Amino acid sequence: MEKLLPHEVQEKLSSVPKWKLTDEKWIERKYRFRDYLKGIDFVQSVATLSEQVNHHPFISIDYKVVTLRISSWNAKGLTALDFELAAKYDEFYLRETS
Amino acid sequence: MEKLLPHEVQEKLSSVPKWKLTDEKWIERKYRFRDYLKGIDFVQSVATLSEQVNHHPFISIDYKVVTLRISSWNAKGLTALDFELAAKYDEFYLRETS
Repeated sequence: MEKLLPHEVQEKLSSVPKWKLTDEKWIERKYRFRDYLKGIDFVQSVATLSEQVNHHPFISIDYKVVTLRISSWNAKGLTALDFELAAKYDEFYLRETS
Repeated sequence: MEKLLPHEVQEKLSSVPKWKLTDEKWIERKYRFRDYLKGIDFVQSVATLSEQVNHHPFISIDYKVVTLRISSWNAKGLTALDFELAAKYDEFYLRETS
């Protein structure tokens, strides 16, 4: 996939408003859970999808806060896939917390 | 649990030689996996135990490298429990990779 242009990144970002651009090459979101193990279930869902599409976000787990950070290193920046996955992760989060 | 004294920390560290002391208050180890989802299974085991003993390490997943960092914030440093858990995590790793 091709690296998005800055205005394309801004447009895509508006569709996943809880994600933040960091260092121009990454988007990042923190997800908070009431229950630690719900956060771990979420990580499991994220990981399973990541493996299916062979595109793996950086994940960190600080007790009940899970942070995801994603970029396309082979495109040296953000691609449409990063934003598609961000939207999917947001869906998983809604599922875990609803 | 009580915070360990520096010489006690050094003694305990010798029983988990792959763990490194960082910032005096934390111990940390990186685990490498051949298979991404094996790393995720490992995280699941670590998380389940953490919840059982109510002591949760910081976990990060950078593709096939899982990093654990642990400390006892209520003791403001390292306790015997941190080292017991480190040894358990090492056992889980051996199980996943053998």
